[in-house]
Amino acid sequence: TENPPSPPFSKGGMGGFADIGFGLKEDEIIHSRGLITKDEVRAVAIHKLRLPLKGVFWDIGAGSGSISVEAARLYPGLKVFAVEKDDEQICNIKENKIRFDANNIEIIKGKAPEALTNLPSPQRVFIGGSGGKLKEIIDLIAKTQASIVVINAATIETLNEAVQNLEKSGFAVEVSEVFVSRSKAITGKRHMNALNPVFIIIGEKQT
Amino acid sequence: TENPPSPPFSKGGMGGFADIGFGLKEDEIIHSRGLITKDEVRAVAIHKLRLPLKGVFWDIGAGSGSISVEAARLYPGLKVFAVEKDDEQICNIKENKIRFDANNIEIIKGKAPEALTNLPSPQRVFIGGSGGKLKEIIDLIAKTQASIVVINAATIETLNEAVQNLEKSGFAVEVSEVFVSRSKAITGKRHMNALNPVFIIIGEKQT
Amino acid sequence: TENPPSPPFSKGGMGGFADIGFGLKEDEIIHSRGLITKDEVRAVAIHKLRLPLKGVFWDIGAGSGSISVEAARLYPGLKVFAVEKDDEQICNIKENKIRFDANNIEIIKGKAPEALTNLPSPQRVFIGGSGGKLKEIIDLIAKTQASIVVINAATIETLNEAVQNLEKSGFAVEVSEVFVSRSKAITGKRHMNALNPVFIIIGEKQT
Amino acid sequence: TENPPSPPFSKGGMGGFADIGFGLKEDEIIHSRGLITKDEVRAVAIHKLRLPLKGVFWDIGAGSGSISVEAARLYPGLKVFAVEKDDEQICNIKENKIRFDANNIEIIKGKAPEALTNLPSPQRVFIGGSGGKLKEIIDLIAKTQASIVVINAATIETLNEAVQNLEKSGFAVEVSEVFVSRSKAITGKRHMNALNPVFIIIGEKQT
Repeated sequence: TENPPSPPFSKGGMGGFADIGFGLKEDEIIHSRGLITKDEVRAVAIHKLRLPLKGVFWDIGAGSGSISVEAARLYPGLKVFAVEKDDEQICNIKENKIRFDANNIEIIKGKAPEALTNLPSPQRVFIGGSGGKLKEIIDLIAKTQASIVVINAATIETLNEAVQNLEKSGFAVEVSEVFVSRSKAITGKRHMNALNPVFIIIGEKQT
Repeated sequence: TENPPSPPFSKGGMGGFADIGFGLKEDEIIHSRGLITKDEVRAVAIHKLRLPLKGVFWDIGAGSGSISVEAARLYPGLKVFAVEKDDEQICNIKENKIRFDANNIEIIKGKAPEALTNLPSPQRVFIGGSGGKLKEIIDLIAKTQASIVVINAATIETLNEAVQNLEKSGFAVEVSEVFVSRSKAITGKRHMNALNPVFIIIGEKQT
Repeated sequence: TENPPSPPFSKGGMGGFADIGFGLKEDEIIHSRGLITKDEVRAVAIHKLRLPLKGVFWDIGAGSGSISVEAARLYPGLKVFAVEKDDEQICNIKENKIRFDANNIEIIKGKAPEALTNLPSPQRVFIGGSGGKLKEIIDLIAKTQASIVVINAATIETLNEAVQNLEKSGFAVEVSEVFVSRSKAITGKRHMNALNPVFIIIGEKQT
Repeated sequence: TENPPSPPFSKGGMGGFADIGFGLKEDEIIHSRGLITKDEVRAVAIHKLRLPLKGVFWDIGAGSGSISVEAARLYPGLKVFAVEKDDEQICNIKENKIRFDANNIEIIKGKAPEALTNLPSPQRVFIGGSGGKLKEIIDLIAKTQASIVVINAATIETLNEAVQNLEKSGFAVEVSEVFVSRSKAITGKRHMNALNPVFIIIGEKQT
């Protein structure tokens, strides 16, 4: 029972990434050791963002740019601003922008919230890092047209700060904690290795 | 510090879904009680699929069609076959196809693997339900050009069956277990409510 | 290869509980629907308490008394004060005290912190419920000789309140979040059913 | 509002362990790097064992002896056999037996199931490691009077093997998967660090 042939599927270009959409793997994305949003968590965060097909998306504390790159590739009509203060990370984002042909990413070197003041008002915002200025960043975002803000927190303190400040700024807040373990084969057995849990805080502007 | 205005962002059409891409919520998708892949798990499963921008995708045991609909909306150039045996679920898929304007879904009523035999060979396959025929379904998929198969398992037995049969069919197998809890506000406090964990089994054809 | 017989093991008394120590199951403990610390979480909380063989233990917001009963059975030399404000729960604790022959439990009906003021100073304290008075309760505990306080939190707000107030009162604070899923057999398959995660906050007096 | 003094609570002996019962911490137990059942998991496993106050307990693949030591300290009337094949681990168990004054542990150097054949028949068995002989070990246990067997599995394969063989041997089988994350303070924030999940398989002899 052979299935009939389907339309040809070329594997050309960009090291094989041209034909693949959403679904980049950590080891395909240039990043500094340990500093990347894990695949599963990135998938959930982007899902929660409900990105528009076009418009403006801010990725604050962009790190390696993994969220920016996936978002930019999903929606070529979306303008993605990757805001990051760290030099090494800026290099990573630049490399990833080229690697994944993500021309709709604009890289902004600087600290939030200052670095945000001249950017076009966003529809969506992701905060992966805030350099200790989460409250100030949320205050600024609340004045934009952003209707969904997603914040990833690895600590109890950031979880709490995110929830409280989003609420104060008039967002309806929900939290999804995501706990993932992945199989790692060692001598023929699949050991389940845990990733650190991430609190994904979602703020939706009440209208 | 007002941010400059960004391009207008219309909210028209399809009950507001026209402008939103990936990121549908359970309560937006027509489904039978309890029978829907939860948002976070759907996000991860689709990420693992690494869907191509065009080609053929089989969604076996499609249920409400939530995976089919998100995949179809992500890539209008992808041909999605939603295979489902249950009448009520077929109705749900039909309604969701219309609701989300997902014309690139073809609904196939029937049981796998029989219902699969005349479909065009897929690049990707998702199995959300197998009606007790997981081995036979994997055997059939192994003869197609499918390079990635993703299987969601809620039980230890399906986890095991999926891993063993994918391996026997020559796929490299990895497992991500995803455990999610969501906040639910009750009298001003956010209670963390767990979703049942899902084992997401990923088979990649070794080439 | 038969193993040699071991000393006889009688199953007499207390409905079979006489010979069993630590390890009571939820369905053996009288409780109001849904209101019981789950077995796995109870085990971890009691482990974190590092109960002394004798001395005084306060179980605040004792609920069904499941923690009190396990603690009392573990250490007959320990004096356990089960503090609870709710009438139905007081009944449950009374029944469990008899059922499990836990004579070293003293049941205190009343609200904390008021109900605590005349109790002998404790070595250990568990807080399963605080009736909105967590800060006041921790303040009072801080003045006793209690060297370990364990608090179970089901909400983000209680997590935060517990951590902050224990710290302010001079305790070193750690948190273990415990996420459990249990198999439930349905038509021959073991479905993994999640329990809601619990944040177990441990305060140790710095000396 | 000073609480009245409670009976004196001496802190003497055994490096402070004399007065503490159940609740040993990993860093108090001598162990080889990484090879110890984590506190929370140990607590749950011991709870599931429902150890009797006296009788015989086999700890197979005892590793550092952490389960043996906690069990032995809980019930001085219990005879604990710590079975382990590895020389370094045997040393660890010996040191822990002394450190925690656990005279009711008998250390058995050897491989299971062979090393088990001359031991007195147990009421309870824990299997932390099986050296690839899980089936044979369960077969042997099934012939003893053991009414509860608890097996910790870190891999999908061991999970599966444990469930299938316990069932074949007539045990009712349940699984609790335990996922723990612990706070770790870094520059004033509590990062939640995951431990690898453990599948705790519980077999109860059907009577």
